[in-house]
Formats: sequence, C-alpha cells, structure tokens
Amino acid sequence: MESPTRMRGVLAPVITPFDSELRPDAARLAKHCRWLLDNDVGLAVFGTNSEANSMSVGEKVALLDALVEAGLPPARMMPGTGCCALTDTVELTRHAMRHRCGGVLMLPPFYYKGVSDDGLFASYSEVIQRVGDARLRIYLYHIPPVSQIAISHALIERLLDAHPEQIAGIKDSSNDWNNMKAMLERFQPRGFNVFAGNEHFLLDTMRMGGAGCISALANVNGGAIARLYREWKSEDAKSQQASLDEVRNAFAKFPMIPALKAAVAAFGKDPVWATMRPPLVALTLQQRDALTGAVGGMLRGIPTA
Amino acid sequence: MESPTRMRGVLAPVITPFDSELRPDAARLAKHCRWLLDNDVGLAVFGTNSEANSMSVGEKVALLDALVEAGLPPARMMPGTGCCALTDTVELTRHAMRHRCGGVLMLPPFYYKGVSDDGLFASYSEVIQRVGDARLRIYLYHIPPVSQIAISHALIERLLDAHPEQIAGIKDSSNDWNNMKAMLERFQPRGFNVFAGNEHFLLDTMRMGGAGCISALANVNGGAIARLYREWKSEDAKSQQASLDEVRNAFAKFPMIPALKAAVAAFGKDPVWATMRPPLVALTLQQRDALTGAVGGMLRGIPTA
Repeated sequence: MESPTRMRGVLAPVITPFDSELRPDAARLAKHCRWLLDNDVGLAVFGTNSEANSMSVGEKVALLDALVEAGLPPARMMPGTGCCALTDTVELTRHAMRHRCGGVLMLPPFYYKGVSDDGLFASYSEVIQRVGDARLRIYLYHIPPVSQIAISHALIERLLDAHPEQIAGIKDSSNDWNNMKAMLERFQPRGFNVFAGNEHFLLDTMRMGGAGCISALANVNGGAIARLYREWKSEDAKSQQASLDEVRNAFAKFPMIPALKAAVAAFGKDPVWATMRPPLVALTLQQRDALTGAVGGMLRGIPTA
Repeated sequence: MESPTRMRGVLAPVITPFDSELRPDAARLAKHCRWLLDNDVGLAVFGTNSEANSMSVGEKVALLDALVEAGLPPARMMPGTGCCALTDTVELTRHAMRHRCGGVLMLPPFYYKGVSDDGLFASYSEVIQRVGDARLRIYLYHIPPVSQIAISHALIERLLDAHPEQIAGIKDSSNDWNNMKAMLERFQPRGFNVFAGNEHFLLDTMRMGGAGCISALANVNGGAIARLYREWKSEDAKSQQASLDEVRNAFAKFPMIPALKAAVAAFGKDPVWATMRPPLVALTLQQRDALTGAVGGMLRGIPTA
C-alpha cells in the first residue's frame, strides 16, 4: 500500500557544517543539500549524523528557515524533531509543519532510561495533539545503540491504532535485520513505511516491500545508493549492493560522523567541513589521510567549494 | 581543604511540579524549596529527579527567575545546566551566573555515546570559556546509569589542571563506592568537593573528608539527612545512617521520581504533585497506597497545601 502523502526513497541524515566559532553554516549546508537532491537523495536534516543533538532548538529553527529561504523543497525534507523535552519536540515539530515539511523523524525522549511503553505512547500522543496538524507525518526513530530507548513493536501497534494518519513509518537504525524483517512483515502492509537505517539493508528492504533507506553514507555516496533504490529489480542489483557495502566498510573503520565530514572537506576542497562540535572530535590527519586514500577511487562528484 | 566559594552539605535534586497542562508550577516549586531550606537542604534544581531533561531551556530559565523572585537565595542553588547541545548548556549556565547561583551541576553532553575524553574536555572547556565568568563553579555530574557517559578520573585530572577554579567538584551517582572512594582520595585534597549521589554513602563520604550528598530522598527526608551531615561524628551516626537507609529502601521498591512526587502529593495533601511529564509516568493507585503505607511512619513534616 503506497500513500502519496508518505515519503519513500533514499534520504541522507545531512551532515551539518560549523564555522570556526562552531556556528552552523547555513549557506554551506544549503549547497550540500542541493547536491544531495541533484543525486535524488532526500533531506533528513537534523539526524544523528547531523550532530543535531549538539544544536539548540533555536539553531535548528534558524537552519530550517535558511534552507527553505534558499529554495530547497520542504516536501523533500524529513527534519529530526525528537528532543528530550516534550516542549522542545513540540516547538520543532510545529516549525517543520509551518514549512510543510514532508515528514519529521522523531526520536523518543532519550534522557531517562528504562521508560515504559506507556510513557513513550503518552509522549508521542501528546506531541501529536499539541502540534494539532492533520498533515503531520511522523517517522519513528529506532536507534537503540545511541538513544538507548527502543521503539517496541507493541508501541508501534498502539501508536498506529491511535494515530493511523500521523504515524507514517520508522527509521530502523538497530542494525538488526530480524527487527527490520519483522516490521516489514507486520507494519509495512498497513502503509507504515519502513526505512532501513543504513544502505547495507537496502536491497533486502526493497525486496520485502520497504520504503527505502535513510543512511549516513548517502552524504557522500548518495547517487549510487539512490540508483539501487530505483533499480533494485535489475539484474545487477546484487553487485550494486556489494559496491555500496564496499564504500560503507571503508568508512566504518573510522568514527562515522567525522569521517563523513572529513571526506566532504577533502574531496570538496573545503576544509571548514571537517569542524566538529564537541563532544565529537575531528579525525586526526593520519586518519583523514587513511580514509581519503581508501575511498578516493570509490566516490564521485562531491562538489568543490 | 575547604573553600568558602564551594558548596557543601546536603542538597536535593528538587522535584518539579507540573499542572494539569503539564506546565511547570513555579509557585508550588518555590514552596517546596522553602521547606527544603528550612530543613537545611540546598537546592540542586534541574537535576535528574527534577525531570529537568523533560523541560526546555526556556522553561528552566523561567523557573529559575521565579525562584529568585520568590526570594530564595541563589547562593544555595546548584541548578543542573548540562544539556546535549553546547549552546543550550552555555545559555543555561550563563543564566545561572546572572543570578549568582552558588554553583551549577553539569551533565556531560549525553546523546552521542562512546565519546572520547578529548571530546568531553573540549565540551566543558568551551562552556567555561563562553560563559567567561570567574565566579563560575562547576560540579561535574557522573551518572552513567542514566547519561551513559562516564566522567573518568583522567578527565577530572585534566579539567582540574586546566580550570582549577571553575572545576569545583562532582556528584557521583554511579552507586559505586569504589569510584567514590578513589575520587575522595585523589581529588578531594585538591579542594574538589565530592558529593555522594545518594545518602546511603553519606556517613562513609563524610568520614573520608567528602562534601556531603545530593540525594533524591532529600526531597522527602531532607531534615534527617541534613542532621547526619551535621552530626556525622556523633555516637549515633551509624544508627542515623541505618534509619536513612530504611526510608531509602522503602522508596526504592518503586520508580524513584514518581514515588517522590506521590509521597509529596499524599502527605502534603496536594494531588497536583503526582503529575509526571512524559516519558515518565505516575505511580498506579495501588503503588501509591503501598508506598504511603510503607513510609507513612518514617517521614515528618511535608507541608500541606
């Protein structure tokens, strides 16, 4: 079941450039977003790989405004809006709706650990009620290795029953295929769009009727990932998947977020991109050189400054 | 070594009342704070037990303003100001300094996991530099069961060497006496005030020259905890400690934060206090009755509405 009001395809959790004062750099971000769209990659801005949780709500509001002002299409945006604080999540989600973003990717509140499904259900329901916009489409964000708060299947079922229009899908970054598979079987038939949290599962996801992937590597290898999304039924799909995995494995030898930024800085000849906001730290020069040496031949077309 | 500019004693991570619209209730909070001060308990507002991470920076700024306006002494306040986002931590810490709070309790940024000491050092240093106030006194907040980000002894050493005035101490909520003991031996002699994260370790902490405790239970049993802080050299100190432990053990059979609020609601005859902001949930009526039955004879003096 496909719905025209739900997002599909390949999206990048768009990395965020910071200037030397550690301020978000909206112009550089807009340029990177434009390149992603040119490669058929949607914009999951303010994701984990965006260092979004190292930015304030105000900074994210300002960045979203700047991207829309720069002419980037909100329909292709799925900003991350889930914060620890209920009121922050509501504010950011409302702002995304003001811009008519295609959807929002919503972390559960993640400070308190061991919270109940009752508490998470109350949290998502309260946000939906407070935002109060029939066009709101929420993609749940299941990333237990980082958030430490899992989105259980029982919770999905309950949310879908209560808010069938608003609960539009999930990004599964558990890296657990069995979890993906179970959700594809149980929830995708209800129009609940299941996105793999990385492109390693893209082909398998598409074969089971899934919606695509939202993948860190789409920041640097988006064109190739989007091609497999379009051509997953083609004969060379398996070999395309193998090529994607090769790039991913080369990056996975380094801390992912600084590695993505180092690659964009190096291949785009724009060193500003390498800046990280604490608590994350940039690759060492040695790591950077090892990375660019390993992946230089695999990537194409990162635009230069 | 004792410094007059550093805080000591017993502090409560003050629970936060919410009204039926889930808005923070400044008047009720001020009243509870006054009762705590009357019991010789300092105000670690915006701690874990305060549901602080379920509130926005703006809500915390407004609450702090209201408490100061209500006449509560900032010198007795150690607001929690550590957020995920560097810019939020800076904003909240600056605001605490505007009010000349005695100190701030600072979580490390806690969304990204497995971050390096380099990244945490950069984060704390950046905050200190941006706040730029010689009076700033930071108490590090080590609570790995919740934040999942440990404050290592190597990090403390490095921060103390770089910022000997600003790095004033730590709250250790690891619940690991060996960690407390090692910090008391290594850092307390440098004037770095080590607070136990709960009153179960209060007597042992005082015997080793520590600064006191910052304890959830001080919200309901603060008078007795503060008494042991003053009388730890007395003959009945061990029996005082045993009585404190008895109260704690009765509460520990329930989720701690809702249990504290349920007790204040019940004994203070003020049901509004039982309200939790998602993702936390209130005790069931059955839990509440079991709790109040168990601790009713142990607590004294929670003021009625």
